[in-house]
Amino acid sequence: MQSTRRHLFKLAGGAALLSGLSAVQAAVPRSSIEKFDEQYDVVIVGSGFAGLTCALRCAEKNYSVLLIEKMTILGGNSLICGGNFACPGNPNQKKLGIKDSREIFIGDCTRDGLGINHVELLDVIYDRCNDVVALLRKYGCTVDDSHLGISSGHTAARIIESTTSDGSCYVLPMLKALKGMKNVTIMNRTKMDSFVIDDTGRVAGIAARTKYSFNSKLASDDADNTSGEQKFYGAKRGVMLAAGGFSRDTWFRQMQDPRVQPTMDSTNQPGATAGALTAALDIGAAPIQISWLQFLPSCNPDEPGYGISANFIEHACYRYGIIVNPKTGKRFVNELAGRQPKTEAMFAVIGKDENYPVAIGDSAAAKAVNPAFLTAPLEKKTVKVFNSIDELADFYKIDRKALRDTIEQYNAAVKSGKDEAFGKPMNVTNGIDLSKPPFYAGRVCPKIHHTMGGVLISPKGEVIHMRTHKPIPGLYAGGEVTGGVHGASRLGTVGIIDALTFGMVAGENI
Amino acid sequence: MQSTRRHLFKLAGGAALLSGLSAVQAAVPRSSIEKFDEQYDVVIVGSGFAGLTCALRCAEKNYSVLLIEKMTILGGNSLICGGNFACPGNPNQKKLGIKDSREIFIGDCTRDGLGINHVELLDVIYDRCNDVVALLRKYGCTVDDSHLGISSGHTAARIIESTTSDGSCYVLPMLKALKGMKNVTIMNRTKMDSFVIDDTGRVAGIAARTKYSFNSKLASDDADNTSGEQKFYGAKRGVMLAAGGFSRDTWFRQMQDPRVQPTMDSTNQPGATAGALTAALDIGAAPIQISWLQFLPSCNPDEPGYGISANFIEHACYRYGIIVNPKTGKRFVNELAGRQPKTEAMFAVIGKDENYPVAIGDSAAAKAVNPAFLTAPLEKKTVKVFNSIDELADFYKIDRKALRDTIEQYNAAVKSGKDEAFGKPMNVTNGIDLSKPPFYAGRVCPKIHHTMGGVLISPKGEVIHMRTHKPIPGLYAGGEVTGGVHGASRLGTVGIIDALTFGMVAGENI
Repeated sequence: MQSTRRHLFKLAGGAALLSGLSAVQAAVPRSSIEKFDEQYDVVIVGSGFAGLTCALRCAEKNYSVLLIEKMTILGGNSLICGGNFACPGNPNQKKLGIKDSREIFIGDCTRDGLGINHVELLDVIYDRCNDVVALLRKYGCTVDDSHLGISSGHTAARIIESTTSDGSCYVLPMLKALKGMKNVTIMNRTKMDSFVIDDTGRVAGIAARTKYSFNSKLASDDADNTSGEQKFYGAKRGVMLAAGGFSRDTWFRQMQDPRVQPTMDSTNQPGATAGALTAALDIGAAPIQISWLQFLPSCNPDEPGYGISANFIEHACYRYGIIVNPKTGKRFVNELAGRQPKTEAMFAVIGKDENYPVAIGDSAAAKAVNPAFLTAPLEKKTVKVFNSIDELADFYKIDRKALRDTIEQYNAAVKSGKDEAFGKPMNVTNGIDLSKPPFYAGRVCPKIHHTMGGVLISPKGEVIHMRTHKPIPGLYAGGEVTGGVHGASRLGTVGIIDALTFGMVAGENI
Repeated sequence: MQSTRRHLFKLAGGAALLSGLSAVQAAVPRSSIEKFDEQYDVVIVGSGFAGLTCALRCAEKNYSVLLIEKMTILGGNSLICGGNFACPGNPNQKKLGIKDSREIFIGDCTRDGLGINHVELLDVIYDRCNDVVALLRKYGCTVDDSHLGISSGHTAARIIESTTSDGSCYVLPMLKALKGMKNVTIMNRTKMDSFVIDDTGRVAGIAARTKYSFNSKLASDDADNTSGEQKFYGAKRGVMLAAGGFSRDTWFRQMQDPRVQPTMDSTNQPGATAGALTAALDIGAAPIQISWLQFLPSCNPDEPGYGISANFIEHACYRYGIIVNPKTGKRFVNELAGRQPKTEAMFAVIGKDENYPVAIGDSAAAKAVNPAFLTAPLEKKTVKVFNSIDELADFYKIDRKALRDTIEQYNAAVKSGKDEAFGKPMNVTNGIDLSKPPFYAGRVCPKIHHTMGGVLISPKGEVIHMRTHKPIPGLYAGGEVTGGVHGASRLGTVGIIDALTFGMVAGENI
């Protein structure tokens, strides 16, 4: 006798729990709970960019929306990120004489992404990023695209810069607009634990806890935090997963890369853990490229998180100066290499004994960048000033002669325009070498910045099931909780437009 | 009111299906089936190396064992692999004057693995590989460690070579031994669909189909094949997952790396799909490093699978000759680079229009290798012979002058002992260049060979849960279905000892 899939269901099913052949897996069967505590058209998990643009689009359709955030502060990493986002095909590019295209944008992303990007998702960003700009403006955000910037890895000026140097210029107006809408409910300190699945296999809602109190002192907040009151929230049209990445999940990230010690710092807010991602995997969401972690190699081990010295280190020291291994006094990498190779080189130097490299720039470098970049780190002493190279060498316990030799070689390379040793593109140094005291230096290290992988989504923002290869009915996702958009490594500024775009797109499709 | 985890269970649970906070997720609740069709102490899924050594250790303890294989042929990839395995710390190393150690072995593995290996698992291989040798011999395998070989990436001679040039010299005696045991049942054409979970969260058995007929013509055999009769098999002590990798799963592998087209060939047997892996993820097994796929860059697009020309290409052409891009007639990579960088370089050349590189060696190269390497490919014309470089160039539509220039430059590099262009280590060429007709050539491409990721296991072979970070009770795994042992890229010969070791270890711990 041949049994069909449907037959298997009946044999195995009994109740709503089936044999792993559909989305009807794990999570809470709808039939096991009497009724939902509250019912909405849409439930959105996470209050960063993807959650906010999704909520706005849903609210425009007069859907009732519940938007939950497990932390006390709304906005997630979106609030504290740099806030600059890529907008390829922006109409001002033409006015400004900038050549850009779908091919150039995707070429830039896939170069950094090592070719494993899901191009069908990058297409959506290219096609819809200007609709995102319109959406932001509609809800009171100032989006200044009169000037378009460029940063590492981009080959066309296409970056709209934040007016507040962070994401708050977009997060706060969107939150304000949503708070003013009658059909939108926003709840902080509310954590999703798992999905509620109806007997057709559809995501019908979530199991969550209100009055949740995130505890960063626990080894794993997701595994060990028992605070809060359980509630079941129904989602008639669908659930949007916009829960972000897991850069602060010490267990999950070290599983993927054992070199990432629990003590390794991150640029992320403390709530960036894998709980919501694993709840989606529990119901069969396809896991994609989860082992690619991205580090930001311009961080400083002497300050927490993203800190205040990364801009000076990146723009003054890496561009116009050098990074040396204090044990040898020598350079060891092209200071302007991409995030991934630079991180690998720095890890090799840091080793197990925390031998942090030292980044050095001179007064000409300091003058060539935004003066604000230096003020705060000098005040907090995370970047230090030295009257001579010898003084600097002594402070960091670097051999004086070795460091002087390194700088002599580097200055010769600036002069010749060719860095034989590491291939740094000397044309961007504008002739600035390391010769004009005072000298500035800070210790540097990579900090975990973005987790590239997550769940697989369709171009409509639907979450794809790993077994059926079809959308899981009623489940959408966008932003850092998804994977594939950026491949192995993300260009700066594309993470933000990714989240904004797929939040909006999912909101249109729910 | 603070709700505890246990409290959540009660609210959400009802029956055995809980809210994603333990291993009790997805799969078939024990309470939903009346009784198991058959009960064993141990159920083993997969009949390759890991399944076989696990079965032997369990049988030694007088456990009743069911070993299932979904394919008709028993042995999986283990049967058709190269059969040579690393055995660091083998007692004959001392006699042969070979210096090896735990540190040297782990250093070799982590160098190729890009540092993301789980070293605690490599420790187990180092500690137990000689016990594997004893186990193999005990059950009738000929293990000839009087000579110890070396291959790419290993820095010590530690490889025990197969007496049959494949894995059959180990698979067949172990199968024979198991078939002779009263407490062991072996069933082919039996496919596991999902796990059966009891109300304590323990894996209590599996849902499977007997009389299953694998169908490689389906887009996805796992998703679409409905053949077979459903059975439930109980496993009183535990289930061993030894189901191998997913190199033949066109959907799952392309999700991880979109460049891997469905038409891309693999060295694996056709049944190497992700079905069993996804069943484990369904019950919360931690997914680790799943996006790292390994390609074998010495394959030939003009023959299926591993084929018959890889040995000649690797040992004659790559070592003593060159690879050229037919569009340019130029070299593009160090022919002796590691699997990962060589694969990346070849992908870039192949592009979307299947511009396969051409590997070239001369008659001196052919004489320097095992004559058997050339016989079969010449006969099948997957490697071709040419009287002159011009004739070779014409056949592959390479510009004659460009190819002659390339060879002239290469021969000069052999003479000088330094390959300025690509850094090939010229000391291994023994002075053989490309000057002695006839010339041999074949088209080359990477084929997908090993999927590095899988489920996370403990050093005891227990499968770790992604939420609790603890073993899933009753579930063990070993071999290619697991991840972390090899990190980003596996050294040749370590995959076999990985599977043999963790099968044995899991069998001891079940």
